[in-house]
Amino acid sequence: MAISLAYLGPIGTNSETAALAYARFLADTMNEEIILHPYPSIAQTIQAAATKEANLAIAPVENSTEGSVTITLDTLWQLEQLNIQQELVLPISHVFLSRGTSLQGLKTVYSHPQALAQCQRWLTHFLPKVKLIPTNSTTEALSEINQDPTSGAIASPRAAKLYDLPVLATNINDYPDNCTRFWVVGLTPSTVGNKISLGFSVPANVPGALVKPLQVFASKEINLSRIESRPTRRSLGEYLFFIDLEIQYDHTLTQEALSELATHTEIIKIFGQYCVTPISPSILSEL
Amino acid sequence: MAISLAYLGPIGTNSETAALAYARFLADTMNEEIILHPYPSIAQTIQAAATKEANLAIAPVENSTEGSVTITLDTLWQLEQLNIQQELVLPISHVFLSRGTSLQGLKTVYSHPQALAQCQRWLTHFLPKVKLIPTNSTTEALSEINQDPTSGAIASPRAAKLYDLPVLATNINDYPDNCTRFWVVGLTPSTVGNKISLGFSVPANVPGALVKPLQVFASKEINLSRIESRPTRRSLGEYLFFIDLEIQYDHTLTQEALSELATHTEIIKIFGQYCVTPISPSILSEL
Repeated sequence: MAISLAYLGPIGTNSETAALAYARFLADTMNEEIILHPYPSIAQTIQAAATKEANLAIAPVENSTEGSVTITLDTLWQLEQLNIQQELVLPISHVFLSRGTSLQGLKTVYSHPQALAQCQRWLTHFLPKVKLIPTNSTTEALSEINQDPTSGAIASPRAAKLYDLPVLATNINDYPDNCTRFWVVGLTPSTVGNKISLGFSVPANVPGALVKPLQVFASKEINLSRIESRPTRRSLGEYLFFIDLEIQYDHTLTQEALSELATHTEIIKIFGQYCVTPISPSILSEL
Repeated sequence: MAISLAYLGPIGTNSETAALAYARFLADTMNEEIILHPYPSIAQTIQAAATKEANLAIAPVENSTEGSVTITLDTLWQLEQLNIQQELVLPISHVFLSRGTSLQGLKTVYSHPQALAQCQRWLTHFLPKVKLIPTNSTTEALSEINQDPTSGAIASPRAAKLYDLPVLATNINDYPDNCTRFWVVGLTPSTVGNKISLGFSVPANVPGALVKPLQVFASKEINLSRIESRPTRRSLGEYLFFIDLEIQYDHTLTQEALSELATHTEIIKIFGQYCVTPISPSILSEL
């Protein structure tokens, strides 16, 4: 039976590209068929997997230029029962699209706030006076520019092809190594892979409250590849911490570290142990 | 001579309310006159103070529900020379505005993404099917709803008064203690107050790279009231860290800690030592 996969739609978003790459990966490695289901927001995408509306959901978690996609962390913390099955790293390249014939005369640029932020320097240099208008997805920006030649949009090269829109500039992202991590989440427990992600809260805002949890890993030479704080939302100055661990060899050591961590934290939630798969440019060019 | 203060405009934004409260505070305590200058984005607001277009700039840095305003941290790190003069904590209350007579029949809701996020539960409960459209500020949302009774906006109670729009619901934020920290920044060195904010990068992504900097403060019982990571933008997995310290009594101890910190970090930037002023509801009701 085909596996259903929820993603932030519509067709042409970077989430759809990641979903297609994951579908290809599952078809190649496990001969599994995947059916993609678009959702209007990241929160709804992840909730679809929690409520079994879809078997799996794919969601962006971090971009190399703009940092955390906080709604993904917050939603995973709230839903509790979801596990990370797989991480995909997608290279992100932005193009500039417009029905106008040149950059001169443009008045407005539409795109998702993450895309606008990732092309900030290019926009300041080439279009210093345009009005920047945020949209819910990079694809949504495209519908805005169809009628009006004084407007432009930032989207993926794939979206330009799909919606048949003229490309005025390519690779406009400020950092050439721009990429986004996506997590595939589902209800199945995940215990295989070299990476573990977890979230925890600490008992109180006292000197060194965060040092003890971090020392647990440092003393065992376990690398933290990422640490992120998020507000508990109860009051200003109270935080949750999200951590990614790299497991090098000794899994027993990791289990010991996680047990020890529990003695220094208030609430702890393990989001899963999983593998990281970079998406190759050759797969991308075929999508 | 009057002091000029840049803020994220136009009139009616929460930044403007914070700017007005700060102007009142300076008038009361130092008999200083302040002239407010609106800017279209947070980055441009902060840059105005760096380029001396304005004497000071006020910018949101963290909300208790939605977390960091990352553009403020990123801009301060890039500009280097600005110092935090003062922190203001503003209680944030959102109201729902529409020219329609009731919540039934509404199709779209406009607001700043932070405001939409802070009222997520209310929106899911009362308007589960509406389309949420992000805008550059809560005030910008208001111009969208004037002609169309099937649309609504989330903004501040002050904006409702200023733009004379009907309020359909008040206090719709998911958390009653919702508040935002604002920093007033300028070129004057700042060395008075019980809080220090700084940013640093660590030499390499090795086990425990972050533990040593944090141990410096824990061993001296200096409380970190906040830690935030941001991508260096060079490559995925490399981070800058932003820290707020609370200085309780011994300033020498703090200076020692900062010197010691420098031996464990790559680049370190002190953003200033400053006081925190909560804005009282009585001042807000007069604005």
